[in-house]
Amino acid sequence: MIAENMKPRVAGNSVIRQMFEEGKKMAQVVGPENVYDFSLGNPNVPAPRAVSDAIVDILQNEDPIRVHGYMSNAGFEETRQAIAEDLNRRYGTAYRAENVIMSAGAGSALNVALKTILDPGDEVIVFAPYFVEYKNYIGNFYAETVEVAPRPDGSFLPDMEGLRKAVTEKTKAIIVNTPNNPTGVVYPETVIRQLAEILAEESERIGHPIYLISDEPYRELVYGDAEVPHIPDYYDNTIICYSYSKSLSLPGERIGYVLVPDASDDSQEFITAATIANRIIGIVNAPSLIQLAITRCLDAKADIAFYEKNGRTLYDGLTEAGYDCLEPRGAFYLWVKSPDEDETEFVGRLKEEHILVTPGSAFAGPGYIRISYCVAYDTIVNSLPGFRRVAEKYSLETR
Amino acid sequence: MIAENMKPRVAGNSVIRQMFEEGKKMAQVVGPENVYDFSLGNPNVPAPRAVSDAIVDILQNEDPIRVHGYMSNAGFEETRQAIAEDLNRRYGTAYRAENVIMSAGAGSALNVALKTILDPGDEVIVFAPYFVEYKNYIGNFYAETVEVAPRPDGSFLPDMEGLRKAVTEKTKAIIVNTPNNPTGVVYPETVIRQLAEILAEESERIGHPIYLISDEPYRELVYGDAEVPHIPDYYDNTIICYSYSKSLSLPGERIGYVLVPDASDDSQEFITAATIANRIIGIVNAPSLIQLAITRCLDAKADIAFYEKNGRTLYDGLTEAGYDCLEPRGAFYLWVKSPDEDETEFVGRLKEEHILVTPGSAFAGPGYIRISYCVAYDTIVNSLPGFRRVAEKYSLETR
Repeated sequence: MIAENMKPRVAGNSVIRQMFEEGKKMAQVVGPENVYDFSLGNPNVPAPRAVSDAIVDILQNEDPIRVHGYMSNAGFEETRQAIAEDLNRRYGTAYRAENVIMSAGAGSALNVALKTILDPGDEVIVFAPYFVEYKNYIGNFYAETVEVAPRPDGSFLPDMEGLRKAVTEKTKAIIVNTPNNPTGVVYPETVIRQLAEILAEESERIGHPIYLISDEPYRELVYGDAEVPHIPDYYDNTIICYSYSKSLSLPGERIGYVLVPDASDDSQEFITAATIANRIIGIVNAPSLIQLAITRCLDAKADIAFYEKNGRTLYDGLTEAGYDCLEPRGAFYLWVKSPDEDETEFVGRLKEEHILVTPGSAFAGPGYIRISYCVAYDTIVNSLPGFRRVAEKYSLETR
Repeated sequence: MIAENMKPRVAGNSVIRQMFEEGKKMAQVVGPENVYDFSLGNPNVPAPRAVSDAIVDILQNEDPIRVHGYMSNAGFEETRQAIAEDLNRRYGTAYRAENVIMSAGAGSALNVALKTILDPGDEVIVFAPYFVEYKNYIGNFYAETVEVAPRPDGSFLPDMEGLRKAVTEKTKAIIVNTPNNPTGVVYPETVIRQLAEILAEESERIGHPIYLISDEPYRELVYGDAEVPHIPDYYDNTIICYSYSKSLSLPGERIGYVLVPDASDDSQEFITAATIANRIIGIVNAPSLIQLAITRCLDAKADIAFYEKNGRTLYDGLTEAGYDCLEPRGAFYLWVKSPDEDETEFVGRLKEEHILVTPGSAFAGPGYIRISYCVAYDTIVNSLPGFRRVAEKYSLETR
């Protein structure tokens, strides 16, 4: 008697469950230290000490009724104010507390933003490959996901002509994710400028604004000289969905926000509606204690250098073995071209080496695999011989 | 450019906002101690000390990556196991961890349960008056809310004949809320038995099961000899949505669960689908640290006696002044018959005495008002003269 709507998702889930069970069995047979699990995007550096210090201090010195109590559905005023000021310092903007709506992580921030704007039958554009949940989130509101295929140049930057063709009168929004899951690509400023130009032109053409929903959980995870432009500086109708899951290593705590800049279309109405959406989708408000804790930790950061070293080691090791990989610029994912046309075959061969990775088709990016390198450094080093053996089977040319 | 769907909600919100602004202005003029705000259901007793002790201990002694990390979307195994065992001790049941899916409070538990079963056009039955958000939650899935009018006897127990008439082939579920918001009524065992009987018969008649979704955030808030029956003992297809908001005074923390008993229809599929629903609606998982904290505090309880004293004092005071009130048996709401046919007139007169209450029509219960007595005891005592003056204006007979 479950919903028709949920049945395909339950069916899909059993495949993932099967993978998970296989991994567990493998660990029992060869020992967990000999299984190289790169399948999950679960941060593995601890939260900065400042977070637990803040929590303890709040519990010892503040009124428990306030600390654990309801506040405005948009969040504590002091938290929103601190975030606005932090953004203003970093980006030279002029945000106020009102522009920030606290949410239960980026997942709920995206649901809040989408609920605010979507009616059944509306369309939302995404660039393939993309985080699989977008389709589910958009589907929550009975709207359609419109995929733009990757550029043929293998850069995994957005295909601008494909974008133009994807826009219809039903287009309400586009979701942009840079640094990107699953590719690790960071869109440079020129790309953001181009995107903004096209979206402005297309909005004009279809007679209503297209919101750019910027999903930014990896904003602080960038390496080398990569920089993440502040998209509202380039396109007025930008809505930012942010999470502290990665920057403060708090993924389980469900804490993030929706940022609605004043320059965005109907911003006042959007803010009111998003605040109500927070309530209606059942979250009511972002968890209270952790809101107060992050208010004091906006300058803290989890150990990003750890991920950078992991990404570099993996990229170097796989490139030497002959694999064709995108250089990791951000997030904690390496996007690797499959030497097999059917990447699930490649995934199967890696599994024989006890290496678990995700096939690109899970992200609408067939022909590639995603390696999550938020794992112990040793896992990476110890997995390289297995990757090399598989490369040899495919007769890849070592470099 | 916000969704058509959200527009009426934004419009409705401005009324509430207006009330809130009026209250703030009132406080500025006469002083906050002279404003008697009974409009919100915000617990005002502190969380038990055991909760903050548990949090501090966890932060000091457990691995931060685990404490703040992702876990199964259904929640930490140890938390779910502890809750199952706690229920088994109290109700003589045989629940396992698998039956419990942690969620971000009852609001998200209800959304998870409804997403699991509802397709557009389905119907969910509620007994008026009822918590306003139910309609929004059901509307999230483009399903219809079917209201059963109150019994004419003024008991605010469910009208069983009305229930029978409300069932159609599209009926997927009924939401039951006892102890009740807004009436404070607790359904006795005989009523639960009757309900179960009718739902079983009607399920048979329409050819598919009707889920009874039991919304139980006030389960522990009962007074005198009132008892809350464990509904799955009476009706197999019961899904419980629980929250620690009131029993542990943690409303801002967003922590609760969905309980899916094995005896319920398609229980395995329901559990899988509800776990996926947790993820898809964007919560992903209930906040992690607070999950671990409540695991250690299931025996603790906020100071319920405080609410009982408040309710009793208010009931006695208003009854003496001539008002017709339902005796408070549970939750922290007093349901009072309006001496004016149009209860918003009555609400207006109370406002002149700086007493803020919610009109029953906000709960589909016109002709009544709801007084939330989760306020300082002094607020209750000091408001009574104002209630008496209004009673005199209506020439109510004092007792």
